[in-house]
Amino acid sequence: MIPRYSRPEMADIWSPETKFRIWFEIEAHACTALAKLGVIPEEAAKNIWDKGSKAKFDVARIDEIEREVKHDVIAFLTHLAEFIGEDSRFVHQGMTSSDVLDTCLSVQLTRAADLLLADMDALLAALKKRAIEHKDTVTIGRSHGIHAEPTTFGLKLAQAYAEFERGRMRLEQARADIATCAISGAVGTFANIDPSVEEHVAMEMGLVPEPVSTQVIPRDRHAQFFATLGVIASSVERLATEVRHLQRTEVLEVEEFFSEGQKGSSAMPHKRNPILTENLTGLARLVRGMALPAMENVALWHERDISHSSVERMIGPDATVTLDFALVRLTGVMDKLLVYPENMQANMDKLGGLMHSQRVLLALTQKGVSREDSYRLVQRNAMPVWRGEGVFLDLLKADEDVVLSDAELEDLFDLGYHTKHVDTIFKRVFG
Amino acid sequence: MIPRYSRPEMADIWSPETKFRIWFEIEAHACTALAKLGVIPEEAAKNIWDKGSKAKFDVARIDEIEREVKHDVIAFLTHLAEFIGEDSRFVHQGMTSSDVLDTCLSVQLTRAADLLLADMDALLAALKKRAIEHKDTVTIGRSHGIHAEPTTFGLKLAQAYAEFERGRMRLEQARADIATCAISGAVGTFANIDPSVEEHVAMEMGLVPEPVSTQVIPRDRHAQFFATLGVIASSVERLATEVRHLQRTEVLEVEEFFSEGQKGSSAMPHKRNPILTENLTGLARLVRGMALPAMENVALWHERDISHSSVERMIGPDATVTLDFALVRLTGVMDKLLVYPENMQANMDKLGGLMHSQRVLLALTQKGVSREDSYRLVQRNAMPVWRGEGVFLDLLKADEDVVLSDAELEDLFDLGYHTKHVDTIFKRVFG
Amino acid sequence: MIPRYSRPEMADIWSPETKFRIWFEIEAHACTALAKLGVIPEEAAKNIWDKGSKAKFDVARIDEIEREVKHDVIAFLTHLAEFIGEDSRFVHQGMTSSDVLDTCLSVQLTRAADLLLADMDALLAALKKRAIEHKDTVTIGRSHGIHAEPTTFGLKLAQAYAEFERGRMRLEQARADIATCAISGAVGTFANIDPSVEEHVAMEMGLVPEPVSTQVIPRDRHAQFFATLGVIASSVERLATEVRHLQRTEVLEVEEFFSEGQKGSSAMPHKRNPILTENLTGLARLVRGMALPAMENVALWHERDISHSSVERMIGPDATVTLDFALVRLTGVMDKLLVYPENMQANMDKLGGLMHSQRVLLALTQKGVSREDSYRLVQRNAMPVWRGEGVFLDLLKADEDVVLSDAELEDLFDLGYHTKHVDTIFKRVFG
Amino acid sequence: MIPRYSRPEMADIWSPETKFRIWFEIEAHACTALAKLGVIPEEAAKNIWDKGSKAKFDVARIDEIEREVKHDVIAFLTHLAEFIGEDSRFVHQGMTSSDVLDTCLSVQLTRAADLLLADMDALLAALKKRAIEHKDTVTIGRSHGIHAEPTTFGLKLAQAYAEFERGRMRLEQARADIATCAISGAVGTFANIDPSVEEHVAMEMGLVPEPVSTQVIPRDRHAQFFATLGVIASSVERLATEVRHLQRTEVLEVEEFFSEGQKGSSAMPHKRNPILTENLTGLARLVRGMALPAMENVALWHERDISHSSVERMIGPDATVTLDFALVRLTGVMDKLLVYPENMQANMDKLGGLMHSQRVLLALTQKGVSREDSYRLVQRNAMPVWRGEGVFLDLLKADEDVVLSDAELEDLFDLGYHTKHVDTIFKRVFG
Repeated sequence: MIPRYSRPEMADIWSPETKFRIWFEIEAHACTALAKLGVIPEEAAKNIWDKGSKAKFDVARIDEIEREVKHDVIAFLTHLAEFIGEDSRFVHQGMTSSDVLDTCLSVQLTRAADLLLADMDALLAALKKRAIEHKDTVTIGRSHGIHAEPTTFGLKLAQAYAEFERGRMRLEQARADIATCAISGAVGTFANIDPSVEEHVAMEMGLVPEPVSTQVIPRDRHAQFFATLGVIASSVERLATEVRHLQRTEVLEVEEFFSEGQKGSSAMPHKRNPILTENLTGLARLVRGMALPAMENVALWHERDISHSSVERMIGPDATVTLDFALVRLTGVMDKLLVYPENMQANMDKLGGLMHSQRVLLALTQKGVSREDSYRLVQRNAMPVWRGEGVFLDLLKADEDVVLSDAELEDLFDLGYHTKHVDTIFKRVFG
Repeated sequence: MIPRYSRPEMADIWSPETKFRIWFEIEAHACTALAKLGVIPEEAAKNIWDKGSKAKFDVARIDEIEREVKHDVIAFLTHLAEFIGEDSRFVHQGMTSSDVLDTCLSVQLTRAADLLLADMDALLAALKKRAIEHKDTVTIGRSHGIHAEPTTFGLKLAQAYAEFERGRMRLEQARADIATCAISGAVGTFANIDPSVEEHVAMEMGLVPEPVSTQVIPRDRHAQFFATLGVIASSVERLATEVRHLQRTEVLEVEEFFSEGQKGSSAMPHKRNPILTENLTGLARLVRGMALPAMENVALWHERDISHSSVERMIGPDATVTLDFALVRLTGVMDKLLVYPENMQANMDKLGGLMHSQRVLLALTQKGVSREDSYRLVQRNAMPVWRGEGVFLDLLKADEDVVLSDAELEDLFDLGYHTKHVDTIFKRVFG
Repeated sequence: MIPRYSRPEMADIWSPETKFRIWFEIEAHACTALAKLGVIPEEAAKNIWDKGSKAKFDVARIDEIEREVKHDVIAFLTHLAEFIGEDSRFVHQGMTSSDVLDTCLSVQLTRAADLLLADMDALLAALKKRAIEHKDTVTIGRSHGIHAEPTTFGLKLAQAYAEFERGRMRLEQARADIATCAISGAVGTFANIDPSVEEHVAMEMGLVPEPVSTQVIPRDRHAQFFATLGVIASSVERLATEVRHLQRTEVLEVEEFFSEGQKGSSAMPHKRNPILTENLTGLARLVRGMALPAMENVALWHERDISHSSVERMIGPDATVTLDFALVRLTGVMDKLLVYPENMQANMDKLGGLMHSQRVLLALTQKGVSREDSYRLVQRNAMPVWRGEGVFLDLLKADEDVVLSDAELEDLFDLGYHTKHVDTIFKRVFG
Repeated sequence: MIPRYSRPEMADIWSPETKFRIWFEIEAHACTALAKLGVIPEEAAKNIWDKGSKAKFDVARIDEIEREVKHDVIAFLTHLAEFIGEDSRFVHQGMTSSDVLDTCLSVQLTRAADLLLADMDALLAALKKRAIEHKDTVTIGRSHGIHAEPTTFGLKLAQAYAEFERGRMRLEQARADIATCAISGAVGTFANIDPSVEEHVAMEMGLVPEPVSTQVIPRDRHAQFFATLGVIASSVERLATEVRHLQRTEVLEVEEFFSEGQKGSSAMPHKRNPILTENLTGLARLVRGMALPAMENVALWHERDISHSSVERMIGPDATVTLDFALVRLTGVMDKLLVYPENMQANMDKLGGLMHSQRVLLALTQKGVSREDSYRLVQRNAMPVWRGEGVFLDLLKADEDVVLSDAELEDLFDLGYHTKHVDTIFKRVFG
């Protein structure tokens, strides 16, 4: 977790304070359920809740105890006892450490997922706003980096919107995947604890019971979660790459926002670098790379080995914090993106109307000219334009073999031809 | 695609013959829609269907044409014209190659997904059968490779069942993700073709229209698909690893099936190697590794670049063929797995009942013995057992400080304590 | 292995025919060594060489036998016996299958490495030629896609040259890493075969003996090999990406070669797509993605498990064939790359000399103007240029607060300032 | 960087304090070279060294400045000026931020590499010591997890030694790969700074000049570095996996060290979990996973984009810190590993001598018995042993068709047969 690429809201989820608070809640909810079963006294459960809720857990103190007992959960329970006193012996009855650790991870991941979902909502809102704003801003569509046919800048953004909406839906599914609770004992048999405890804790913590755990919650759930983050990060990279392309000196159709003050940072007024979107490209690589270790974590040995733990200690915070930061940064970039429709038009004009050559070709064939002749006619008027020697429309009008009236030709050069279905597409995307 | 790890059903989906047949269907359905719109004659559309349906496409001939025209779709259309004649000029009107290529890929991937779903159904059936068969086959649960508490072999299989059921659900979602059709032209604006054509082709090919395409169907869909295959492959690895562990000489609780004939292959009767599950472990690495290139494919430049194409030519067939083979192989392994309950019992017995030490400890504290004293009592009887000097239960009975009657002690050693919730868990998993 | 992205030279290395030929050579060399040790008759060894050398192994026949005996090496030996007769019983004495398989893989990988090294030599030659050709072709250097300071196109190529030279050196090291031979028996102890046999076979096959094998050659060697291919592939991507950028419509400083005929493929003369370099970008993703499964192959269980085998059956051919194809394709692209110095100049001119603003600023401060004032002076002349209202040099000359003579100003706009060390750098790179 | 998996020696390399100190040294060495060239006054260079060397850089203060100026290097230079005064204007003359940042990264990575090399030396020493100690400790070799033929525990360790020695050599090469210095300006042309400055700084910082940089040092160097760490991490995983296997309850041939006190942590004396080596397995996944983002970093756009930066801010520290921790932990595990030769013997004995069946078979054929008959004879004596009904040697002696004397048979059961070349192998490995 790099502070530079972290937002406090997400980082807090992974703080020791938050973790210990969740641990307490899991233990305390378990006590409530155990008291209901008559395994521990009702009074004890109450007392545990009362005192624990008010307790201020001291991370340094817990670390100190852990150094001694070499066990994180025991260290916490020892510290907890310092607040609760006698009744602390009723805490953690019949449970194993993994019950607490794995359920806590589920809580942290679901909270992280909720933040990410909110991030995506904000991003979707920004994309929608800008898409509608630029629904009719005509710009050249490019395949292979080469001018193809006109599209609109709004359509580009609508595409991004639809992509992140898919990402959001996948994230919801991935969130459901890791929202389970396991309080099932050393090998998942509930030998020492009744399944109803798991059900109660799950409900209270906003989770569902893991249908069958071993000692741990199965890691295919987490693998799917992190893989999904990797795909979303790749969509971040896609939009970031689009901005980077459009901001390059020769294109300059958009720019990341810069304040007046910022502009002054260099003597070169053109040196406005798309550093935010470049940064997003790098962050995408990081998040995506974490999918593989998560998948390798699935094949734990028998009822569990602890190899997944170190992986999750790193990628749990790193993947969620990094993607959260990236989504928020991307939202800011898109929300404030400077868009230059005149430059879009100028770039389109650079090819002197050549992008309409296909339509002219088609129109000629429909007039009865053979495909070969049509091709030859178009080409002999296109080549000079390409060499910078004339305007395509003018040359065509002047070519008497081109059996199309000036009005017909002008019609073929109408950009409206290319944008006539924009509303249809917008309706598909935004409803 | 390695023939050794391919099943013909899946390989066929990726054959040139299948591909050209799908291309034809996309083109022909588009003709039907275009005819309905009056863009091309009804008769032509009919003729295209009639002649094309009966045509036997000649892959070598298409390759030959492609070498000349350097374009795969044009090569195909040229060959198609050899069957259809004059009316062939109505084929592909207003379409771009990507319309055909991307929609074809969607058809291939959905068919591949359907095969994989069927594979998973067969695997789930095998797992369920064996799980029920071994619901009460007690075996030791292991954490860290070390004996922990008893569980049942059926529970191990129920866990695998639940995991693959999750995988199946994710695969269904991933299938939906790549089941879209794009017939939207050079930059996705429908400039040269009406959106209703896309709708018609989508419906006929079992797809839904891509709400907003560029020149291509966005690749976040494919990334999610291949990532999901990677997670399922990791689950394959998990179960394969379990079998490999259980088959090792010192454990020998299960074995991959071997026929009488096979046994004869070596003079060493013990040399039955878990080569199928080892193989599955390797295949999982392959499928998982393909998720990354798929994610890198997302950030195409502007309305498309063609960098994704080579990646998909390889991982499209390789990931689906390999996972299909792996799932079928795993199903065979699990279906015919030789299970040795006596060895499971013998392994459990090796530790002379030490796995019950926790219960004895608990029982002592419940009798009012302090936690420290209980611990000391248990330990002094456990250590000789660990050194191979005695049976735990006997030693405890003989220790007069252990304030538990023989009956009570025997009760604590009852395996039923550990299996009492197996039915509950089975109900959760199998309903 | 996709035929479309395969060259026969490399594909042949991985053909069954080649494999069986190598197997024969390993077996026959082992026989020679065994005969020298007196383990088998000299005559037999001679006979095996004689008959085996002339034998035409029948792949279909071997496959047929394998289907029966379920063992590839035994199938081969059975077929070999059909040529050799009686003496075939002396073949494979004291050896295990892995001795043959692993040593064969080493031979295949070293041959593949040799082809790749030759590919890199050809690429380096092309890069050097074009670098020297364009040593002084001035072009704008870009950071963040934004114009920065001038450089030369030759320098760009010199950078690529140096990068691939490093790649070549790493590949040589990686080749050495996988050039070992193991003939050491079931667990690597030479229990049934003398170490001198390994030494002999190694020498004859162009390998060195593996100092300590288990049943197999350790897979860290292969992991390093495939990781190195991944890094080289990433360098391919870098240069390919540069070409793609420079070919985009608005930049057009270079183009992939197109023949006159090819140009005719479209009515749009500008629609020359950098499809070769886009393809190379995709191929790089594939090769790079294979590094991970290769690393996962390292941790085989105990003296060996066979999980690595399926991975290598796929990535052995795929990584080498794909990288071979990519390097040759890249060599062709660079060798024939169309370079447009006028466009490079025109792009540089687009900013009206603003790239020299830093030098002007520095010169003013050296004239005693304060840094703040210098900055203000430069900026007030730069802003109109940026808005397209004037030429930077002219404005500066006309600004009387700019205390630099016309000659001094012209000197500051001299491109030679930026290229004065090009020779130094070329000397560093090309010697 | 997870504190739990960090050693201070390595973490310090990545602290802000260390970074700023290196930045200062780079700037100050550049001043020395610039003074020698007469670009800045000798006195100024001296003063910069004097005051800067004694300065205590205040990280919080630099952060505060950075928040204002939004540029890390400028923030540092501003803070530096607070110590140096007037002469600070001579610092950073003609340099760009990347000159400082990239050269600093080279210094950090080489220092990290030096620590890792020292780690590997310690690991190699531990492995050598234990290998020699157990050179003749006979244990069963296993392929596929199944008993194969005897080997020695020393040989297992010799294999690990040879593997890490290779890793060490590769790391040295990787260290050389990232040990370059670039002080070459905005696009690498040395327009504003003489190449001799680079040479001086390189020499003083223990680096070599980068032959040709753009704005940055090319990232193929770093990709190779991180890929090499990934391969070494995979070797860590291999040895860790071996320990995990050997420690499992049914095998118990080795155990991770546990102190007397530690043993007391549970009532179950057998519950000694190989948690250190399990942890190492997870750490290997993490380090390996970082190779991919590093490879994706290679293809920066044109003369540089900043996408690599965020990746390196994370994997620079994370990969080196994690591998350092892993190597030191592994060294501790191997150094203190508890080895149980009696259990090794007992495990070998479990199969009642069946591992010698191949030798018996061979001996029979050498006595003139046909291969088929030999096979039948061996098998009929092996099967009862496998069923637990007798000892192989006894049965063979009693079988009168087995035409081998008791002495001959006993000889065939001699373990010395399998260990006769151990010295040869040790000589190969340890010299």
